Amino acid sequence: MSLEPVLIAGQWRESEKTGTFQAANPATEELFSAVYPISSWSDCEAALNSAHDAFLAMRVMPGERIAIFLESYAAKIEERAEALIEMAHLETALPKTPRLAGAELPRTTAQLRQAAAAARSGIWKNPVIDTTNHIRSCFGPLGPVVVFGPNNFPFAFGSASGGDFAAAIAAGNPVIAKANSSHPGTTKLFAEAAHLAAMETGMPAGIVQLIYRTSHSIGQQLVTDERVGATGYTGSRNGGLTLKQAADGAGKPIYLELSSVNPVVFLPHVLEEKGDALAEEFAGSCLMGTGQFCTNPGMVLLIDGEATERFILDVTQRFEGAAVGTLLSDAVRKTLHESHRILKDAGAQVLCGTGPGSGKGCCVANTLFRVSGEAFLRDPSRMQTEAFGNSSLIVTASSVKQAAAILDHLEGNLTGSIYSALSGKDDEVYDLIAPILRQKVGRLLNDKMPTGVAVSPAMNHGGPYPATGHPGFTAVGIPAAMTRFAMLQSYDNVRPHRLPEILRDDYTGPTQRLIDGTWT
Amino acid sequence: MSLEPVLIAGQWRESEKTGTFQAANPATEELFSAVYPISSWSDCEAALNSAHDAFLAMRVMPGERIAIFLESYAAKIEERAEALIEMAHLETALPKTPRLAGAELPRTTAQLRQAAAAARSGIWKNPVIDTTNHIRSCFGPLGPVVVFGPNNFPFAFGSASGGDFAAAIAAGNPVIAKANSSHPGTTKLFAEAAHLAAMETGMPAGIVQLIYRTSHSIGQQLVTDERVGATGYTGSRNGGLTLKQAADGAGKPIYLELSSVNPVVFLPHVLEEKGDALAEEFAGSCLMGTGQFCTNPGMVLLIDGEATERFILDVTQRFEGAAVGTLLSDAVRKTLHESHRILKDAGAQVLCGTGPGSGKGCCVANTLFRVSGEAFLRDPSRMQTEAFGNSSLIVTASSVKQAAAILDHLEGNLTGSIYSALSGKDDEVYDLIAPILRQKVGRLLNDKMPTGVAVSPAMNHGGPYPATGHPGFTAVGIPAAMTRFAMLQSYDNVRPHRLPEILRDDYTGPTQRLIDGTWT
Repeated sequence: MSLEPVLIAGQWRESEKTGTFQAANPATEELFSAVYPISSWSDCEAALNSAHDAFLAMRVMPGERIAIFLESYAAKIEERAEALIEMAHLETALPKTPRLAGAELPRTTAQLRQAAAAARSGIWKNPVIDTTNHIRSCFGPLGPVVVFGPNNFPFAFGSASGGDFAAAIAAGNPVIAKANSSHPGTTKLFAEAAHLAAMETGMPAGIVQLIYRTSHSIGQQLVTDERVGATGYTGSRNGGLTLKQAADGAGKPIYLELSSVNPVVFLPHVLEEKGDALAEEFAGSCLMGTGQFCTNPGMVLLIDGEATERFILDVTQRFEGAAVGTLLSDAVRKTLHESHRILKDAGAQVLCGTGPGSGKGCCVANTLFRVSGEAFLRDPSRMQTEAFGNSSLIVTASSVKQAAAILDHLEGNLTGSIYSALSGKDDEVYDLIAPILRQKVGRLLNDKMPTGVAVSPAMNHGGPYPATGHPGFTAVGIPAAMTRFAMLQSYDNVRPHRLPEILRDDYTGPTQRLIDGTWT
Repeated sequence: MSLEPVLIAGQWRESEKTGTFQAANPATEELFSAVYPISSWSDCEAALNSAHDAFLAMRVMPGERIAIFLESYAAKIEERAEALIEMAHLETALPKTPRLAGAELPRTTAQLRQAAAAARSGIWKNPVIDTTNHIRSCFGPLGPVVVFGPNNFPFAFGSASGGDFAAAIAAGNPVIAKANSSHPGTTKLFAEAAHLAAMETGMPAGIVQLIYRTSHSIGQQLVTDERVGATGYTGSRNGGLTLKQAADGAGKPIYLELSSVNPVVFLPHVLEEKGDALAEEFAGSCLMGTGQFCTNPGMVLLIDGEATERFILDVTQRFEGAAVGTLLSDAVRKTLHESHRILKDAGAQVLCGTGPGSGKGCCVANTLFRVSGEAFLRDPSRMQTEAFGNSSLIVTASSVKQAAAILDHLEGNLTGSIYSALSGKDDEVYDLIAPILRQKVGRLLNDKMPTGVAVSPAMNHGGPYPATGHPGFTAVGIPAAMTRFAMLQSYDNVRPHRLPEILRDDYTGPTQRLIDGTWT
């Protein structure tokens, strides 16, 4: 039984391990034969030293060179698409098509190429020039970034391939990737491709490194290390908040993407207009990918009435009738059952589901809860328990006023959607509740489910705590996502030839600069 | 003995106090007769409720209205200039001219007017539009901001008048000001002017509120309260880190400006070129305002040699010969003595000073320490103790390599300066050490002392931890400083008439927008 190697300092080498683990196929619930090491601090120490060395080279490297690396890597991913899709399908049970091959893989390579373009143009640097005071400023790289990837997007949010990875590298920072333990094989394939691309494009050895797992305490030590610039974490709230506490204490930026129930509000007249279509749209969005999206609509807010009752009945039937998907892992199944228990204890009524699912392997029946607005407001904290998976909670408010109160009790979320009648009959209510919801979410939607997250410069895949750790940043969208891994650097009276190219008088590149108050 | 009132919910009213305090005149060391309350949680609770109500109104208020308030306030400050200057001089011993009247007051009103212009134009909102995906985003206000002002800039960083205040309000957030306990009377005068301006311009009652002091635990409770959007704190490291821990735990953004030794490096050949002039420049910068600037050059790095010895001798004579200024308070004097003790214990040699000063009231002799690079590297942490006041530490490195190692051991600082010969003879060394220093500071200077902080859009008055709490933000410079008190808000498929004005197709305002990748 051979042990998979870690990638440290440009070498695939044996881990100085404290233990081992195996991932399981969620569709068969059988362990894979591959055995992965749990890294000791010694592995982390070696990775940190190599990342530090890589950073010394990268922080003065032209963006063009980083762009070439990212583009080479994107091409290598495409060359290896078949193997990546096969491995990810086995490790996550996500469908090969359309999900992995048609959606996630092209999204991943597109992100890398967008990041390459931003590295090349320098658009993320936000150059500002004050000729009167001889002060110039721009963003610069921050230092090695540790990336913890989630279980639900093995490609597009993968620790060695996804949005945090692309943003960190494009801003000039090496990455230490911590694989998600449920798909270590997929992450290893990515790291192999990245490593080859790094060698071929002359990058420093420590630009991309890979470990698979550490103990919690070593993970905390890692994010607080003085050689680290910042951390990107996407995953469970508990894990993220433990790392946040450690990083905060050391003054190290950490960007989290945690739980979110992504409230969807259907106002009364839109249900009358097209309740059937909405029931289909909602059930489809909620059950897609077995509900395992960060932006899955986990809470629906309705106002009491006939149309509402029809909608609930319709959705319940759809949930009961829909095929049950396989969850990402046994851990996801256990957490989903536990979330259901909390919701039930808090007083939510089961409309359908909560039991074992009829699908392959790890699954739970499609689940729908219902609770009155009054009951929600008695225990808003437990009622907002994220049930990550094919599950949602319907809240029926007795009045608009109560609906507003419910929204006012929401924690921070990634998204919030409001559906309103095209006739304009819901507009008064919309104007009352939208400002409340606006303040609670990173992305406000109209007449649309939140599950699609376009890779757009205008996207905010972020939101107030505890959806993330800071309301000013997004995890998706180039160049905005890159500023998470940057520091603001001002140059005061610095001699012209010593300035970064983007701040010089003779700069001829494509990036707009704010010069003496005017974009030029 | 009457008690000064707090400003809560638009009323100057009696505090529900837990105790009282009096400030002292640092020049005479006598207590002022005015007695100020230490607020209970009850005061905070009332202020939070009023701030929350004010925020509901402000978050949908046109920037134009906020601009009018800020401009009205700036005018009222000018009307009250004489009283403000008199009071601040008594409470801080800072000279009336040029400091308070000629520099700090105009800076303060200019900041408020710059903030007004940004509120009016919306330039801080960074609008991004993606017409293909129907996604638009911009920054929006975050919620009530608690501002803790420092002792050293009673106007320009004052909790009810300074940079944090202006930035928070201009971004659409009410402010709860916590006066600095050493100049409560000055802060009260500002709050009175702000309150009048708020009433005259029809602002909500809770837009500006004032308390003077709380217990530490109530201060922590305040920054973690769910009604709070963020906190701005400028002051001592201990106080700031205690608040940071509380705010971090609640997921509330907190922006800190803490200690900084602001290293200044003189390379060998520049000392040969103009050592005398540099000694004068350094001594002037270091002793200006009795050394009580956030950007005071508290550490000088030199490389062993004859010119270095001449420089040290010259500076020492200047320190001994210069008049001794009055410190801001007895607390500053105590802390300065304590810092001197730590530096001495760590092995720094006293070149001059450390004893009682010959000036008026609270003072300490102009103080200069010296330590070898070797000794510095034996205890880099204690050697970086900030000695806030008229004091500096000279570090003499045995080689360029050792100088680089010393810079590599620096904590985060607000500024770092390098002086190099005009002949170019220092350029090789500059190129070696500048990248190291660059990563440690928010603002890198050439051939210039760090004590001037221009209010410029290109300024970074920030830097890596522990100089601040986050390396991506600045406390000075409009509009950049405003994004600290903003949240990123994306609009996905939101109906056109419901969008904020700055994101609409028919927007005709002055702010550039990134539309489909092009600045328009």
